Amino acid sequence: MGKIIRINMNSATVTSEDVPQEYVLLGGRGLTSTIVAREVPATCHPLSAQNKLVIAPGLLTGTSAPCSGRLSIGCKSPLTNTIKESNVGGTAGAKLARLGITALTIEGTAKDGETYILNVTKDRAELVPNGAFTRIGNYAFANHMRQKYGDKVSVISTGPAGEMKLSVATIAVTDMDGRPSRHAGRGGTGAVMGSKGLKGIVIDDAGTSPVQPVDREGFRAGQAKILKALAEHPVTSQAFPALGTAMLVNVINTAGAFPTRNFSVGQFEGAEKISGEAVNKNATSRPGGKMGHPCMPGCVIKCSNVYVDEHGEHITSGLEYETIWANGANCGIDDLDAIARIDRLCDDFGLDTMETGAAIAVAMAAGVKSFGDAQGAIQLIREIAEGTPLGRILGSGAEVTGKVYGIERVPTVKGQAMAAYDPRALKGNGVTYATSPMGADHTAANVFAPNLGGIPGLSAEGQAELSKSVQTIIAAHDYTGLCTFVTAVAAADIPTGLDGIVEMLSALLGANVTIDSYSELGKRILAVEREFNARAGFSAVHDRLPLWMTREPLPPHHTVFDVSESDLDSVRM
Amino acid sequence: MGKIIRINMNSATVTSEDVPQEYVLLGGRGLTSTIVAREVPATCHPLSAQNKLVIAPGLLTGTSAPCSGRLSIGCKSPLTNTIKESNVGGTAGAKLARLGITALTIEGTAKDGETYILNVTKDRAELVPNGAFTRIGNYAFANHMRQKYGDKVSVISTGPAGEMKLSVATIAVTDMDGRPSRHAGRGGTGAVMGSKGLKGIVIDDAGTSPVQPVDREGFRAGQAKILKALAEHPVTSQAFPALGTAMLVNVINTAGAFPTRNFSVGQFEGAEKISGEAVNKNATSRPGGKMGHPCMPGCVIKCSNVYVDEHGEHITSGLEYETIWANGANCGIDDLDAIARIDRLCDDFGLDTMETGAAIAVAMAAGVKSFGDAQGAIQLIREIAEGTPLGRILGSGAEVTGKVYGIERVPTVKGQAMAAYDPRALKGNGVTYATSPMGADHTAANVFAPNLGGIPGLSAEGQAELSKSVQTIIAAHDYTGLCTFVTAVAAADIPTGLDGIVEMLSALLGANVTIDSYSELGKRILAVEREFNARAGFSAVHDRLPLWMTREPLPPHHTVFDVSESDLDSVRM
Repeated sequence: MGKIIRINMNSATVTSEDVPQEYVLLGGRGLTSTIVAREVPATCHPLSAQNKLVIAPGLLTGTSAPCSGRLSIGCKSPLTNTIKESNVGGTAGAKLARLGITALTIEGTAKDGETYILNVTKDRAELVPNGAFTRIGNYAFANHMRQKYGDKVSVISTGPAGEMKLSVATIAVTDMDGRPSRHAGRGGTGAVMGSKGLKGIVIDDAGTSPVQPVDREGFRAGQAKILKALAEHPVTSQAFPALGTAMLVNVINTAGAFPTRNFSVGQFEGAEKISGEAVNKNATSRPGGKMGHPCMPGCVIKCSNVYVDEHGEHITSGLEYETIWANGANCGIDDLDAIARIDRLCDDFGLDTMETGAAIAVAMAAGVKSFGDAQGAIQLIREIAEGTPLGRILGSGAEVTGKVYGIERVPTVKGQAMAAYDPRALKGNGVTYATSPMGADHTAANVFAPNLGGIPGLSAEGQAELSKSVQTIIAAHDYTGLCTFVTAVAAADIPTGLDGIVEMLSALLGANVTIDSYSELGKRILAVEREFNARAGFSAVHDRLPLWMTREPLPPHHTVFDVSESDLDSVRM
Repeated sequence: MGKIIRINMNSATVTSEDVPQEYVLLGGRGLTSTIVAREVPATCHPLSAQNKLVIAPGLLTGTSAPCSGRLSIGCKSPLTNTIKESNVGGTAGAKLARLGITALTIEGTAKDGETYILNVTKDRAELVPNGAFTRIGNYAFANHMRQKYGDKVSVISTGPAGEMKLSVATIAVTDMDGRPSRHAGRGGTGAVMGSKGLKGIVIDDAGTSPVQPVDREGFRAGQAKILKALAEHPVTSQAFPALGTAMLVNVINTAGAFPTRNFSVGQFEGAEKISGEAVNKNATSRPGGKMGHPCMPGCVIKCSNVYVDEHGEHITSGLEYETIWANGANCGIDDLDAIARIDRLCDDFGLDTMETGAAIAVAMAAGVKSFGDAQGAIQLIREIAEGTPLGRILGSGAEVTGKVYGIERVPTVKGQAMAAYDPRALKGNGVTYATSPMGADHTAANVFAPNLGGIPGLSAEGQAELSKSVQTIIAAHDYTGLCTFVTAVAAADIPTGLDGIVEMLSALLGANVTIDSYSELGKRILAVEREFNARAGFSAVHDRLPLWMTREPLPPHHTVFDVSESDLDSVRM
């Protein structure tokens, strides 16, 4: 029987309870969204004591299932004011699962100015005063913790941005090298952690064993199927290990859907210089650089990388597509090393690289800096960390930046910036941005792939249906802790892969999970999330892209977003 | 037959059309809200070309009715994203009415960087390039226009804040001394004017006559009734001329409802120093100062004043209660001269004194300045005018300031700051804040008076009903162009006064307006406004005060806002 550990920051006390029977089929987003929807008043201020931060490994996390270490973090979002789940790789998820912790819920707020660290071991979970480690970056914090508690611990932390309660603040998780390079990036979860006065969580799973399925045989059979799918799929077996997620730069740029200079154009003249091929060249030609780097234990895809400078000094781990886009093309910047330094600064300060890049691009549109000014962008990020007024504006996200500078052309839905797929050229992604309960979140249903052959993505037809069905299955996948490239790539394209996931779940729980009942889980949690959002004041009217995207054609295809409102509304039904 | 003049800023052209028959009973807010609801897409960005700025005198404006010169300005608000009407005194309303202009609608946006001035005379309305007069204050702009076009013209303008498209930007109207001291303050109408590229409107009514009623005899009879009510009511005949609106400082402070230091306490230890008595003392003892100053022609109440420094230098005209509160008690400031200078800066830069004071108080709560630091507050206002990042934050209003600084205790509804009546001690005003279609707008139904005898304001009982009925009649009054002290004070307390208003309207239009049909006008326009807001994404969920006000007791009465959600919802029915 798993445990829910409740950390009451008001009283600085920790309690533990058995997971209620009704939560047994819940994990990851399924559990975080359920707890938030039940326990958080929907109209509360996201930074108030009434909000809760819920941290839950997936159902398969801690098992031997490949790439299953994702950790879900949920709350009411200070960026969007909606319910929020953001998940993250790294090493913490598996350790929590091995410790038998189904969820941590961080509740209340510490007395003004007090901050704490939560220590979790096999024997106890306890809060200790944070002491000196305030307003320090994630890298220094993780180092201090590993020096103090040993280099096998996992560290979850919020950076200075979270301590400043900025809406773009992330929660960092250490990777397999002990670096805080994996982030629950979206929606300002770090600000919620900061508002509660919790600087970090140190997890030591010494003395524990992997999670064992009820039916080991059945589990191995399912596992074999998904491993086979991963080995067969050309993206997970070849493209990702070779080029990383940045392989998408050329793919999306060629499709004319690569948002450039604050979503003004769909192709970036500097795309080649920031492509997966360029990442590969730098990572493999420089001493200490590396492609094919896993972000978590049990990863067989290894889409990440270690990015170093010309002298072999570590800059960042995991220079990813969305980061390269947001701080590259979207800011008109084609200097890959500068983008890597931006990524490092964001990881250290605890900033969502996507929202930050989107905010900087809006500021560039307002004339704060020029498009293409890489050093200017770096300076802006330093301002965020310093908490200057300009830094706080940017650290509040693209929508607030647009509001403060009087800019209409802001690419957000429900307060969250869009990702690296312009919805006017990839309309299914536009439907996802518009209708996801999380705001403009590409991970909710990233449906560019079926739209790439020919130019179907330019047509509005069938996009709502496509996004809806993918949002549903992704919501189910988000219970599991499996990496999105397992679920949304391999299992999406190779049916036996999906069979494997369902078989692993059945075997894990000793239950009869079918593809239908699995899909039902997705429907159920989307309904829970939408119901929370309705209580928070969101309705179909908010399931819309900004009006300018329906009016301003995007070069080179010169299309607007023209999925009808009734099609968008069909996604909620 | 009146005219609607449409100013197309895209093409810099002006067209005129007869008022459609269906608009004949509409004026002021009745007309601005109707046109905005029909012609502005509810989901448009308030600063986009799709928004329209509608300027309409009241039905009685331009007649000999006392205090009837209010001018309504409507649009979709950049502060609240709701429909918005803000009305203003000064000399422009009567001139437009005399010119036979029922409404000006400013549509589209000028080419990037171009700004214009609209000249309106008996013979034509035309746009002329603004030339040198960009980013200059309202005082200098009005002076330039009066030098150029003669000192009898009225000038409507937006200040640097509007040109910067800040959400707290106002639209200024010159008073009887030619000073731009009267402002359509709330909701950022000035930002909409700025976004359109319209710096100012110069109105010359030379060659026109007052508006004549159909039934002059009947009109005179109605007029006599309202004049009698104004002469009999002790507030409009004695308190206001003697002490100005600032007479309320002691009244509301004594009631324990005077929001102090960002709504932390309901009484301010420095109240006496910023009271109406203090205003009177300074205004009457200094050379050139004056109480009993009218804000518009035909005013018989004269609640305003001319406030000078010790040497008789003009500081500001119309140092009013809400301004004194917002930048005084709410910021912990008890220096009346400093508050007068803040008022002058706000008038000159074109800032809503209320929203600005509320934003500064939130910034003070965040530690940007200390409560009570008058010079610090003045410096912050200068930053707004300069457009520094901090200035832009404050210039975006209290809610954005709170968001950027991670502050929960922000006293706003639908993005607009509350006024000088703490809703925990005057709960009817809280109902108005929560449920007005305009956001937290005290003028929608300022119901403190019936709550002052004993402590009924501390009880939730009956407050929703009270606010609802007053919101309805005020919405009707807002068609007329009558000053709120005529309608909400004299006509509210003396039934024959209300009879007089209805009789004037009947006689003006040659129609049979009854108290019932008049009240129906109020219901109708509230429904129009709520319907627009629904299309813009607002529902009953947004008719709420911030949750902290339902939890944090307000000294000295230690009450919270406890009007039930069902009571709040009853206001919409």
